[in-house]
Amino acid sequence: MAAPTREDKFSFGLWTVGWQARDLFGEATRPVLAAVEAVHRLSELGAYGITFHDDDLIPPGSSPDERARIVREFRGALDETGLVVPMATTNLFGDPVFKDGGFTSNDRTVRRYAIRKVIRNLDLAAEFGAHTYVFWGGREGSEIDFGKDVRAALDRYREAIDTLAQYVLDNDYGIRFALEPKPNEPRGDILLPTIGHALAFIHELEHAEMVGINPETGHEQMATLNYTHGIAQALWAGKLFHIDLNGQKGPRYDQDLVFGYGDLLQAFSTVDLLDNGAPGGGPGYDGPRHFDYKPLRTESIEGVWESALANMETYLALREKARAFRADPEVQEALEAAGVLELARPTLGEGETYADLLADRSAYEDFDIDRARTQGYGFARVQRLAVEHLLGQR
Amino acid sequence: MAAPTREDKFSFGLWTVGWQARDLFGEATRPVLAAVEAVHRLSELGAYGITFHDDDLIPPGSSPDERARIVREFRGALDETGLVVPMATTNLFGDPVFKDGGFTSNDRTVRRYAIRKVIRNLDLAAEFGAHTYVFWGGREGSEIDFGKDVRAALDRYREAIDTLAQYVLDNDYGIRFALEPKPNEPRGDILLPTIGHALAFIHELEHAEMVGINPETGHEQMATLNYTHGIAQALWAGKLFHIDLNGQKGPRYDQDLVFGYGDLLQAFSTVDLLDNGAPGGGPGYDGPRHFDYKPLRTESIEGVWESALANMETYLALREKARAFRADPEVQEALEAAGVLELARPTLGEGETYADLLADRSAYEDFDIDRARTQGYGFARVQRLAVEHLLGQR
Amino acid sequence: MAAPTREDKFSFGLWTVGWQARDLFGEATRPVLAAVEAVHRLSELGAYGITFHDDDLIPPGSSPDERARIVREFRGALDETGLVVPMATTNLFGDPVFKDGGFTSNDRTVRRYAIRKVIRNLDLAAEFGAHTYVFWGGREGSEIDFGKDVRAALDRYREAIDTLAQYVLDNDYGIRFALEPKPNEPRGDILLPTIGHALAFIHELEHAEMVGINPETGHEQMATLNYTHGIAQALWAGKLFHIDLNGQKGPRYDQDLVFGYGDLLQAFSTVDLLDNGAPGGGPGYDGPRHFDYKPLRTESIEGVWESALANMETYLALREKARAFRADPEVQEALEAAGVLELARPTLGEGETYADLLADRSAYEDFDIDRARTQGYGFARVQRLAVEHLLGQR
Amino acid sequence: MAAPTREDKFSFGLWTVGWQARDLFGEATRPVLAAVEAVHRLSELGAYGITFHDDDLIPPGSSPDERARIVREFRGALDETGLVVPMATTNLFGDPVFKDGGFTSNDRTVRRYAIRKVIRNLDLAAEFGAHTYVFWGGREGSEIDFGKDVRAALDRYREAIDTLAQYVLDNDYGIRFALEPKPNEPRGDILLPTIGHALAFIHELEHAEMVGINPETGHEQMATLNYTHGIAQALWAGKLFHIDLNGQKGPRYDQDLVFGYGDLLQAFSTVDLLDNGAPGGGPGYDGPRHFDYKPLRTESIEGVWESALANMETYLALREKARAFRADPEVQEALEAAGVLELARPTLGEGETYADLLADRSAYEDFDIDRARTQGYGFARVQRLAVEHLLGQR
Repeated sequence: MAAPTREDKFSFGLWTVGWQARDLFGEATRPVLAAVEAVHRLSELGAYGITFHDDDLIPPGSSPDERARIVREFRGALDETGLVVPMATTNLFGDPVFKDGGFTSNDRTVRRYAIRKVIRNLDLAAEFGAHTYVFWGGREGSEIDFGKDVRAALDRYREAIDTLAQYVLDNDYGIRFALEPKPNEPRGDILLPTIGHALAFIHELEHAEMVGINPETGHEQMATLNYTHGIAQALWAGKLFHIDLNGQKGPRYDQDLVFGYGDLLQAFSTVDLLDNGAPGGGPGYDGPRHFDYKPLRTESIEGVWESALANMETYLALREKARAFRADPEVQEALEAAGVLELARPTLGEGETYADLLADRSAYEDFDIDRARTQGYGFARVQRLAVEHLLGQR
Repeated sequence: MAAPTREDKFSFGLWTVGWQARDLFGEATRPVLAAVEAVHRLSELGAYGITFHDDDLIPPGSSPDERARIVREFRGALDETGLVVPMATTNLFGDPVFKDGGFTSNDRTVRRYAIRKVIRNLDLAAEFGAHTYVFWGGREGSEIDFGKDVRAALDRYREAIDTLAQYVLDNDYGIRFALEPKPNEPRGDILLPTIGHALAFIHELEHAEMVGINPETGHEQMATLNYTHGIAQALWAGKLFHIDLNGQKGPRYDQDLVFGYGDLLQAFSTVDLLDNGAPGGGPGYDGPRHFDYKPLRTESIEGVWESALANMETYLALREKARAFRADPEVQEALEAAGVLELARPTLGEGETYADLLADRSAYEDFDIDRARTQGYGFARVQRLAVEHLLGQR
Repeated sequence: MAAPTREDKFSFGLWTVGWQARDLFGEATRPVLAAVEAVHRLSELGAYGITFHDDDLIPPGSSPDERARIVREFRGALDETGLVVPMATTNLFGDPVFKDGGFTSNDRTVRRYAIRKVIRNLDLAAEFGAHTYVFWGGREGSEIDFGKDVRAALDRYREAIDTLAQYVLDNDYGIRFALEPKPNEPRGDILLPTIGHALAFIHELEHAEMVGINPETGHEQMATLNYTHGIAQALWAGKLFHIDLNGQKGPRYDQDLVFGYGDLLQAFSTVDLLDNGAPGGGPGYDGPRHFDYKPLRTESIEGVWESALANMETYLALREKARAFRADPEVQEALEAAGVLELARPTLGEGETYADLLADRSAYEDFDIDRARTQGYGFARVQRLAVEHLLGQR
Repeated sequence: MAAPTREDKFSFGLWTVGWQARDLFGEATRPVLAAVEAVHRLSELGAYGITFHDDDLIPPGSSPDERARIVREFRGALDETGLVVPMATTNLFGDPVFKDGGFTSNDRTVRRYAIRKVIRNLDLAAEFGAHTYVFWGGREGSEIDFGKDVRAALDRYREAIDTLAQYVLDNDYGIRFALEPKPNEPRGDILLPTIGHALAFIHELEHAEMVGINPETGHEQMATLNYTHGIAQALWAGKLFHIDLNGQKGPRYDQDLVFGYGDLLQAFSTVDLLDNGAPGGGPGYDGPRHFDYKPLRTESIEGVWESALANMETYLALREKARAFRADPEVQEALEAAGVLELARPTLGEGETYADLLADRSAYEDFDIDRARTQGYGFARVQRLAVEHLLGQR
């Protein structure tokens, strides 16, 4: 097994390895993990980055002195290890004050408080050199259709993002925003539930150019959606600013499994897309590979590090296989035969107009439709080769 | 029960009441329903419009003479009854030639053929006075991640829509396009799987202003999404160009039940949104209420008309209840108390900047967070009132 | 609206109205609700029963004196109000000791501890006169297929239930057991995931006759299953010993909504089945109507009581409608026409053998298959009438 | 890659490789595949068995002579190749006559016809030496809760199975029955929707000993259930009489993908269970490995054979990996440490009663609960090893 290195750009949320495993039905099974300890252990395992919510790093209610001490010690650990903070985010969901959301709470004073809380942490994010700031609006939503005016909520969502974007621009923080969609949980229905909804929303923003998305594997799969397709559409729109990798077994509670431990075949195509710009070539994704997972509640701290490593090793294994898959002449031939590369060719010829197309009898009147109806696309063969590579059979 | 009238703008696809009930596992249970018969019966039931795919109206392989006769007879039935054709669409999924899609098939000749097939039917749609042309790309997708370059596919999708939009503009057809999202079935994963993905895609089009969406109740619910939320985001973006109403029981095969026969509570909020611009007021939707459903396979033609009527009656019942709900002073008071209307108020005051917000100690430093944490939003009361209205208990 | 009375046998878990609304993503939004207060308020609202987990009533770690005081005060409140304790259950999921399950933990000492914890609370349940004891094995399961030998786990599950049944029998407690299935959450996959799996398991028990099930609306619907069908199969097997009513919007996290706030149409058929033994007649269910729901996290205590009442009122409204539906001559005629009652008639005549059937040419050789193929079953009409009754349109 | 051999007992339905790829939305893309051709090709690929529905082999409406010829030719092909017919089944879903089901149709004449149709094919199954007869009741169900009396339907289902069992016994056919559960599609809700429901139903049958189940991977996963857990419960009950392997991506339409092309990790544990009786040892499953899949509609006949082979090769690859996994000393050590094997040890000691347990202070009063709370179960390590084996990294 290849060992993770800094060049692989693997990062982890402080809240992932630090999750104490308290859930809706039971109490914590693990003690607090000190942030400094997390930095050192992640560094030893080969990660390059660590990320945080404001409240992960600095317990709510900390005095200015405590805050300063925490920041100093965290900075020290980063300096010692060389770990970076590529991303930070705000906790707008844990405090009861956010029970009806932050930016879109029906209580205006909560909305104002939420913006202030973000600004405060944006300063800290900038101080730590983060280039990306994530917004996961887990409490922006409703259980009761009649209790939330969705259009007004989207107005408020936009207002908050526009305001915060202006703040970042004015302060030259060099930070870009990344919205993280999720369909439901903890709210019955969350606003901006999928990659698509978030991409569409971004187009309505004042500073759309500095806002992209941070799609999470499991969140899309909770909505039955193909994650690889989703990030492909985000890449197509130039909006894949950050990524949250993990595992999920379809529509059910948010599992946050280790990357690959849900739909392993799709994890393979995800890595191929990110690294190889697959399947027809083209640019992939160059940013951090961020794991947003929860170590199983059954595990002690040994299991935490075991699973943290598993995320990275699985990614590396899939990357290696994706490269071998692409390099395999039989695969190349199969992709060619299946027309995968042909799809990059425009449907109309260079300079061809619809009028030309209408005049082309071979396109319609004389089209050999029987050939097209009876041809086999050869996807069965492509998939067989992919699975053979995945299983290490080739 | 109120009876449907033309003013209610109810429309049906020819393929809905005309569905012969052949499914993946069994043969047709009903005989062919003549289009002319469908027009007359729908008119008698109170519908105002009928819609069609090219191949519904004109069986593939018809000679020019047959085509002309069919068109003439259909036109005659419309004239006799006063029914209109508010929308038309293309069948790019039934013929084996489209097994890997139309606009995004890996076979370029198929893509060219698909555009030609659409153009042909656009002419017919214009001839019948349709103002909306729907694109449901049911075969645009894949089962095998490695068999489809999604970015190339989106390029081709855009190319096709841009080309067809140009054709419509040049011909002054007065037609707008409406994309219909669906997550899966008949393909394993379909491109533009949700309202959000389609809205985001539209922003990348050359003639984005003439392209909106045609969201279907069941398609969103197959992806676990809140349909009312989805159409609210579409309205927010000014893109709700058409609508397909039906029923679905969550993620499973596409059921196309009668409107309201799936999530009845959500059907209630959908009608409220369309008719009352709910919940905080604001413009609703003014176009046809189009039912895209399948009469149960167990039914003979009597059951077909019974269920067609049920779609309309359920809609009317929900509309009446939505109005009474809005007009109920106790409801108004409950919505007010729940802050539903307050959300329309900007988070920042008029002319307020983030700097002003930062200077407002009441927003953060002196914020009475305990009040905000312990307040109840009163959604339980709103929902109780809504259900009482729905059940006719108030 | 009819007001709930004791005769309606509505009961609530102490953990439902007492839920402090702490979830996986956020802290509690409501203060502790005293058990005595819950008894009084539920009594005022018209409930007849209250139920509890050992740890709901008696905080873990209570001294014997505290325990005695709590029991005394709770008993006092019951006596004052006349509320009964029809059911009790054990918390085998909250304490970290149960992180890999209770009866089926891979750690034998945990299994032994779990049985002891149940026995202790069985004594208390008997003291309070409970007739039903529920087993929800929320932590009995796994996330990792290779980490749990399911057959061994089922052996241990059986061993635990057999042992506890023997204890109850020997003590003449007059208690029956009810297993509560759930597909997942908090474990990735839970053992005995559906009504069916639990019913099948019961057949393997030593004292199968004293073990039935306690199916919960939302748990079945999380697995896409029809709850009404499930409880019908349980009634068919004579095993519907208790029932947990609530609401759920299909496969996603466990929502525990108010009864009827998920699939309202199915809630209607559920009430019809319980009260009228629907649809072809026959005995229904005579036990407590137990609501296992969670008041929305956005609500203060007022919203808690509002929603508690809503559960009961919705049930009563549906019951009234179900009776009117059954009594409606048009409905009776429609059910008759649809063959609903005919299904109760055996397929073979009295005394008829397969040999007789083989000799009956009218059954096969001379069967008028075309009539059977083309007949309409009239389900569209039945459903239209049902929805009209539900919406108060008839 | 290992090549499939007869000893591997791979079998295919005639309707799988013979599927012409007509679906709900489109026409057939492949020509008819002759049964004799299917036998020869499957034999060449290494399969050992072929199975059929009555109507697959003998087109409905065939004359007695045609029937005789078809049977003769099929028998000839079997003799030539050595292929066997381990299982047969009845098509009670394709003909419109079964639109409301076969055994549980609301029309009694249909129920009688259905039993006759089965008897006729039981004779043929016996003639071909089949030992298992499958019942998939795809049309036994409803879309409308009020249209089907589920208890009456279960009575009729039982009556049909009892009658047919008696027929088989009296004729000494040596055939066992296997019920195949499915949650929905083509009916809105199907009776006996999961493994559990079918197992529970079997207990109510007259000849329960000769009835087991035939669970299909995708059918359980459509209901969000863990297939490996399901077949483990069936094995525990001694009821895994046959098995249908394929792939599915969670709750959506029935995909019938190649085995392993859905949840590949679960396919791994399935094979381990079937072949190794995993994870704690114990007997596995000895019958045919039957693939019930649909070759992609995009494929020509080459893709059909490619995917048929892929089913077998994936199975063999997983078997080999499962054996290596079990044999790996590090895995054995990890399973031991995780207590996986310990679960086979009874919770009570030999001869220990609950009274002894109550007297054992170490079980409760003196239990070292802190150790049990803080221990890690080591599932993370087990899973990491499993994934490494699956990916060929060890």
